[in-house]
Amino acid sequence: MQALFFDMFGTVVDWRRGIARESEELLAPRGYSLDWIAFADAWRAEYQPSMEEVRAGRLAFSKLDVLHRRNLDRIRPRFGLSDLDEDTCRALNTAWHRLPAWPDVPEGLSLLRKRFLLAPVSNGNIGLMVRLARHNDFRWDAILGAEIAGDYKPKPQVYDASCAALDLAPEQCMMVAAHSSDLAAAAARGLRTAHVARPDEYGPGTGEPRPTVPVDIAASDFIDLARKLA
Amino acid sequence: MQALFFDMFGTVVDWRRGIARESEELLAPRGYSLDWIAFADAWRAEYQPSMEEVRAGRLAFSKLDVLHRRNLDRIRPRFGLSDLDEDTCRALNTAWHRLPAWPDVPEGLSLLRKRFLLAPVSNGNIGLMVRLARHNDFRWDAILGAEIAGDYKPKPQVYDASCAALDLAPEQCMMVAAHSSDLAAAAARGLRTAHVARPDEYGPGTGEPRPTVPVDIAASDFIDLARKLA
Repeated sequence: MQALFFDMFGTVVDWRRGIARESEELLAPRGYSLDWIAFADAWRAEYQPSMEEVRAGRLAFSKLDVLHRRNLDRIRPRFGLSDLDEDTCRALNTAWHRLPAWPDVPEGLSLLRKRFLLAPVSNGNIGLMVRLARHNDFRWDAILGAEIAGDYKPKPQVYDASCAALDLAPEQCMMVAAHSSDLAAAAARGLRTAHVARPDEYGPGTGEPRPTVPVDIAASDFIDLARKLA
Repeated sequence: MQALFFDMFGTVVDWRRGIARESEELLAPRGYSLDWIAFADAWRAEYQPSMEEVRAGRLAFSKLDVLHRRNLDRIRPRFGLSDLDEDTCRALNTAWHRLPAWPDVPEGLSLLRKRFLLAPVSNGNIGLMVRLARHNDFRWDAILGAEIAGDYKPKPQVYDASCAALDLAPEQCMMVAAHSSDLAAAAARGLRTAHVARPDEYGPGTGEPRPTVPVDIAASDFIDLARKLA
């Protein structure tokens, strides 16, 4: 095994509290008061349907930043944000660039980096991943994933293109994710798989405490993953 | 200005002494004795012609690792290496993954990283760039360049695709290279340009001591570049 591929939203970063906090920091000073967690959940709820348009071929590949913006515009009326000006909408859309890592991630990545190449294989676009890395001081070897494949996970070409970009066979790569669906799709392409439990992803007790599909490794967090791969 | 794009071969790393040394380390213990610098020069001499096949549309885009291997096979007979076995040829081809940085590069990149996103925009493929970065401890924000564009510099789409991958306008990006032809092509796409002198690239006094085209910055090395961009 030579490379670890990381799902990002939910696995490496806590999108829910991150979006809630970033949105509040931007909008509260402008006089908006809303249920910030509900706003984050609503924005995220548009995520899969918007990518499905691309996966199904009804929409040409669009970067996740573009889909996030479209999804924001779709939910704004529900949260009394119809009158936000363009600059504020743009700034709000970059909330996804500043999500915080789960607490175990910095130490875990630092341990894993000693033995493996590390790359996000996320549905986030390269520019988004780059800014998220700077925000959190992540050290990646390359940014792989949806944008280099021109389609969204769990489509097989995202996993295939990511292995090919590093000139590695699928069995030399391991997908790391908190979501069994991602791991099942990676395994179907020949990658190894590691599940990391993020039981609070959508709020307390809502995430996957353990994988629902066969995996090579099931870890409680990134430090546990590093120990199990040592 | 938000991002710096780096040419790699000749600008960041010393391919000539690197290929000579790596080849000697691999082949001398196997009983081969040859003019290692001449071998490096001969291998590199096939570089532009092989990419020109792709640029001209006569050959589908092939990663530089593949072109390097084809070029190696082309020059082997001239150096008495016709009988190298397949494993040795493969190992030799990865000499390009272990080229040494010019001495000013580590400190220069570390200074530049404080203010800018940094990415190779090289004709080298992603896998090659990743291994070169590990070998030299380079810290890039992303690996951009030929492979994400599907063509080779100085074709305009390589510069365009690299700016687009970071969601930046061309004028927010600066191409850094020791070769005026690369900088002229980048400037034609609206990027800013910085020339770094590598006067010994092909041997003493053979490189460009200064740019032969208009540039935004002309620097003597990466530390000088960091000072001029401060």
